[in-house]
Order: sequence, then structure tokens, then C-alpha cells
Amino acid sequence: MASGGTNFFVIVARSGKARAGYLHTAHGVVQTPAFMPVGTKGSVKAMAPDELWGMGYRLILSNAYHLSQRPGEDLIRELGGLHRFMGWNGALLTDSGGYQTMSLASLSSVDQNGVRLRSHIDGRRVELTPERVVEVQRALGVDIMMALDECPPYPASFERVRRAVELTSRWAERSLSVERESHQALFGIVQGGVFPELRVQSARELVNLPFDGYAVGGLSVGEPKRQMEEIAELCSELLPFDRPRYLMGVGTPQDLLVAIGFGYDLFDCVLPTRNGRNGCAFTSQGTVSIKQARYARDQSPLDETCACRTCRTYTRAYLRHLHLSGEILAAKALTEHNLFFYSNLVAQARAAIVSNTYATFARTFYEKLSASSEEHAQSSKEVME
Amino acid sequence: MASGGTNFFVIVARSGKARAGYLHTAHGVVQTPAFMPVGTKGSVKAMAPDELWGMGYRLILSNAYHLSQRPGEDLIRELGGLHRFMGWNGALLTDSGGYQTMSLASLSSVDQNGVRLRSHIDGRRVELTPERVVEVQRALGVDIMMALDECPPYPASFERVRRAVELTSRWAERSLSVERESHQALFGIVQGGVFPELRVQSARELVNLPFDGYAVGGLSVGEPKRQMEEIAELCSELLPFDRPRYLMGVGTPQDLLVAIGFGYDLFDCVLPTRNGRNGCAFTSQGTVSIKQARYARDQSPLDETCACRTCRTYTRAYLRHLHLSGEILAAKALTEHNLFFYSNLVAQARAAIVSNTYATFARTFYEKLSASSEEHAQSSKEVME
Repeated sequence: MASGGTNFFVIVARSGKARAGYLHTAHGVVQTPAFMPVGTKGSVKAMAPDELWGMGYRLILSNAYHLSQRPGEDLIRELGGLHRFMGWNGALLTDSGGYQTMSLASLSSVDQNGVRLRSHIDGRRVELTPERVVEVQRALGVDIMMALDECPPYPASFERVRRAVELTSRWAERSLSVERESHQALFGIVQGGVFPELRVQSARELVNLPFDGYAVGGLSVGEPKRQMEEIAELCSELLPFDRPRYLMGVGTPQDLLVAIGFGYDLFDCVLPTRNGRNGCAFTSQGTVSIKQARYARDQSPLDETCACRTCRTYTRAYLRHLHLSGEILAAKALTEHNLFFYSNLVAQARAAIVSNTYATFARTFYEKLSASSEEHAQSSKEVME
Repeated sequence: MASGGTNFFVIVARSGKARAGYLHTAHGVVQTPAFMPVGTKGSVKAMAPDELWGMGYRLILSNAYHLSQRPGEDLIRELGGLHRFMGWNGALLTDSGGYQTMSLASLSSVDQNGVRLRSHIDGRRVELTPERVVEVQRALGVDIMMALDECPPYPASFERVRRAVELTSRWAERSLSVERESHQALFGIVQGGVFPELRVQSARELVNLPFDGYAVGGLSVGEPKRQMEEIAELCSELLPFDRPRYLMGVGTPQDLLVAIGFGYDLFDCVLPTRNGRNGCAFTSQGTVSIKQARYARDQSPLDETCACRTCRTYTRAYLRHLHLSGEILAAKALTEHNLFFYSNLVAQARAAIVSNTYATFARTFYEKLSASSEEHAQSSKEVME
């Protein structure tokens, strides 16, 4: 991987621009397209590792910045690395913390060298440099590292985004100069906001560097959905065919269907976990906001077609009662259902790609999801962790 | 049962005063001694029903008062009863809500007819009468109902407690006059505070009534441990041999060992669940407060001798990190471990009774538990739900 990753990613089928493949990591093979549950602090909220494994997940996302602050990457390395620390037998990808420079913007400043911020734990000064970010992820022992990037807020001026693109490219080069373990892949991140010209510049600069995969960042940060899709489609076409493409922070089930169609392979989003804790479920017929009075006597499961533990065990009436009563089981049961739904969605998408019927599958699924449009889950923007 | 319960409870072995038996309910057989996890609002906090079943639990405690307030017993009856509502295939016992008249004392008043209080949900006036309490539990469809009792706070004067005993006896008689389903057992509750004379009076009055089982209430409410044990021992001897004896709200693992030795069969306590959420674990070597700095690099499980999922998966270092990070998984993992520990404790106690080695077993177990005395779980008094 560190040497270019010829066998790191293998594409086995295509349907239009959609691809089905395998990511070969030191902690197992990951089928793509893959959705990564978000475990920012080293735990996918409310879920045990064996439960995630049982749903088919083989790759989890965590956050190098958060873990470096607590409990510290040295402690995790000393205890055998992040996989062992979490009790997770699958693969791990960590985000660098670059995104935190935006979401914790009032606490941070950016210069050529890196990002300075105040720790969200204890207020200490923290400096994230491209080199340090790779060192932290090396210490964590993750399978896939993300380079430090600058992700400007939305909206931002062309000039502001241009500077971020240039900085991200320089940081990308510095990231690659840091030694990592032979099994650790490193991905670069395309920035450029909603400006096609800057996306082209960013992608070209990064593609010239020997990354094992490429991510597209800075989307799903508040821009209109149509613009997000246009930029996502453009970026996918700018990236090399033989490397995994990761669309960061995306998205709703509909977003995934569209982006898989553009040729993306990896996704992460807090929606299934965060919405689950807030009482919102994703179903094959659209979203269900469980607190609504109409479910008070509803004896059906969240989703009639779902085989998850939640749908096999609980009625909507009971889940509503648990949610209104503030019971932990409400958060757990809805999170479990939502993650099962996402896992199933990408598994079905993969099967459709393999049988070269992706366009039909995606259109049918999308329409069912959107049929029940009177209820809405929170948009991605509202639910950033 | 309603007719006297000849086959409701069968004792199969004795060791000293300790008994091993079976409770035959319409929702399965419960081995005794049994500890009941507390699911006040229709959910044992953080636990799914299949997880409780997998640990060996066959009887859960819930609370008729809480459920009558939300979601309401009529709704639960309409949806097929509490078992179905919760997705629980085992047996259920509900407390009446009498205890709430103490813990919500500022909101309540007691007279001959019953208890008046303000709903803890919406402030509405609620009247609990002995008759209504049985009707609620009938609607819930539980296997074991508790009669309405008056549980005075500790400390209380002899006169105050004497009045509570007399009221509880009158209410007990009224409870028995209400029709219930043929499979529903009804237990009376012995009161009398820390006054042996009043405990004798209360037990004699209740034993003259055709209850299917007898509970001892008003202990573990703040009185000294020695006094709790003296009263518990006295009451056990006053109760009929052939009926199940339930020591309410007790207690720590040590309390259970002692009380099983006195001849009690049933127990409930919020300690394993509440302490779990607060970062305290019960282990075979005493309690572990996971937030302590000494566990920061501790790679051992909570309990080396434990086979629960938590101990098979996580180190103390990781659990400490989860707890400090406020992750739901910390609450879940410690609750799961603690309930596994309690289930195991009563299962081992039962095996020792069957092999007529209970005294030796209890002494050995008790001493190990108490060896590590520098850490203390919260006392029962602090953790009432």
C-alpha cells in the first residue's frame, strides 16, 4: 500500500459507473461499496463490536484527533493499537482531524505549518501538522489513514477555497513523506468547495501524488443537494479508476444510491447513529419519527421488510414509549436498526452492480424511500458530530 | 394461584434455611433463588430482552404505577399485554407503586382509601387504591402482582409505622377481593420498619390472608445493615414455608448471600443497572470503580473469572475511556457485566443449596467480595430508582 497499493483495491464488477470491489487490509477484506459506521471516540455510539460485525460491517471510521486528545495515541499504541483497544476484529479508517478545524473553528487557526487549536477536552494548545497527523494514525495502527486537509466552511469565497486547496495539496505532499507501517494505506482528500475549477485543480494535484486512495471532502456541509451531487459526480470522474474513492460525510440513503452510481466506493455518515438516538429511523418506505402520536398504538415493526433485531422484537408503539421515557434502549434499538438498514442498502447495491442492474435497482429503491415525504430525518448538515 | 397456589411454588432442595425451588408461571418456570432485574418503565435500562434471556433471567420486575402513567395500562392491554409490549418471553412481576408514595413523598398523601399523588409525568392527580392497583396489574397481564402497601420512610416513629402496618393489612384484604386472571399470583407485603413487634403483627395479619407469596418491604431504605439483617431474618421465619418469600429492594451481592441463607427466594435491586451506568462494576473480588486513574493502562477484564461479553471483549482501560468519554457503550457494557454477575451469583447459590453446601459457599463468596474493601459501590439507599 505504502508503495502504491496495486493489490490493495480490486474491482470485480461494474454497472455503469458503479463499481463492486474488495479492499484488502491487514484486518480483513472489505467489500465495496461500503458504508462505515462512525466511532469518533473509539466506539460506534450504543453498539458493541460483535453487533456491528454481525450486521456485516468490516470497516469502521474513527477520529485520530479525538483519540489523540483522549485517551492519547501513546496509550492506545502501548495497549496494542486501536483494533485491540476497541475489541474490533475488522478494519479501521481514521479521519485526521482536519474536519475539526472547521467544526471547532472558533477554537482554531490555520497557517502554512498546520492547524492550531484548543483541545476540546482540557483547553490545552494542540498543533495538528500533516506530519503529526500521520504519526498519530501510525501509533493507532489503523488500516487507512487520512491526510490532513483544510475544509473551509460553507459558504466561502472562491479565494478562500482556493487557498484551502493549495494548502491541502502542500500538506498532502508532506503527509506522504512520513514513514508509516507497511500495512497502512494513506488517502488524500480533494477540496475545492462548490467551485468546479478548484475541484479540478485539487484533484489533479492530488492524483499526481502516490496515495492509496482518494477522498472527496468538503461536501454535505450545507450546500444545496443538487450542487453536492454535481461536484461529487465531477470529482469521481477526476479520480483514478483503480483507486478507492471515498465520499466523506455522505449521507442519506438516497445520497448513497446516487453516489454509488457516480463510482464512489466508501462512505461515512453520522446519520444512522445520530438520528437513531434522536428517535428517527430509516426504513425502506422512508423515514419514521418514532415520537409521533400516530405510532402510539402501532403494532407493526419499524420496517415490515427488515430482519434486524429491533424489527424482529419491538413494535413502533413500544419504541415510541421507550423514546418518550428516555430509555437507553430506544437509542440502542433505533441505532441498531438504522445501521442494519445502511449495511443492507450497500450490500444490495453491491449485488445489483455484480448483476449489472444497478441503475434499475437504485431508481426503484430511491423512489420507495422518497414515497413517504411528509417526514424528514435531519439533514446531514444538522447532524455533524 | 388465585385459589392458593399449591403448585405455583415448589421447593426441591434445602441447605440450612436456604431453599431452591421453582416458580411456575404462565410465562415459564423460574428457578429460585432468583434475582429480578429492574425494568421500571418497561425496559431494563440499556438491555435488550434477548440479552437478559441469554444471561439466564426468566423473571423481570417492572412498575405498575409508572406504566399506568406512561403509556397507560389500557394501551398495553390493547396491544396484548406487557410481555408482548416489551418483547419479553419470560415472566413479569410488577411492584404496585406503593413504594412511590415514599420516594415521591412530597407529591403524595395517604388516607384509609389509598394514596393521592401528582403524576410525575404531567402533574395530574392520581389516586392509587388497593383495588385500582390490582386492576392495573390485571390489565398489564403480569404473572405476579404486588398488593398496595404503605412504606414509611426511615427513620419513622413506632406510632407512624404501626399505622402503616394496619393500613397495609386492610389494603391487603381489599386487594384480594378484586378479580384477577387465573394465572396471576398476588403477593402481600410485610411492613413494620425496624420494630420487631410490628413486623410480627404485620406478618401474622398477612399470613392469615390467602396470598400466593409474601414480600418483605421497607428494608434497605437507610437503616443500619445489621438492623436490616435482623429484621429480614425475623420476617423470613414468620412467613409460611411453602410460599415464595421476596425481599424487596435488596441488595448488594453480600446482602443476597445473607438473605438467601435466611430462606428468601426472590430479590430485586437497581444496584447492578444503576451502578453500571455510574461506572461501578461488581466482580468476584469486590467492586471496581472504572473511572479511577489506576485502570488507565489496565489490560485485564473487569473480572478475570467472568465469561460475560464485556469481560470477553473489553479491557478495563477501554471501559474507563468509554466512561470518561460519556459513551453509551460504557453504561451498556457495565450494566451487562453486572447483571451477568448477579445472575451467576444466584445460579451458584442455587447449585450450592442443591448440593447442601450453601453455608460454605456463601461464606467463601462473601469473603472474596469483601477482600477489596477500599472501593465501595453506592449503598442501596443512594440508588433507589
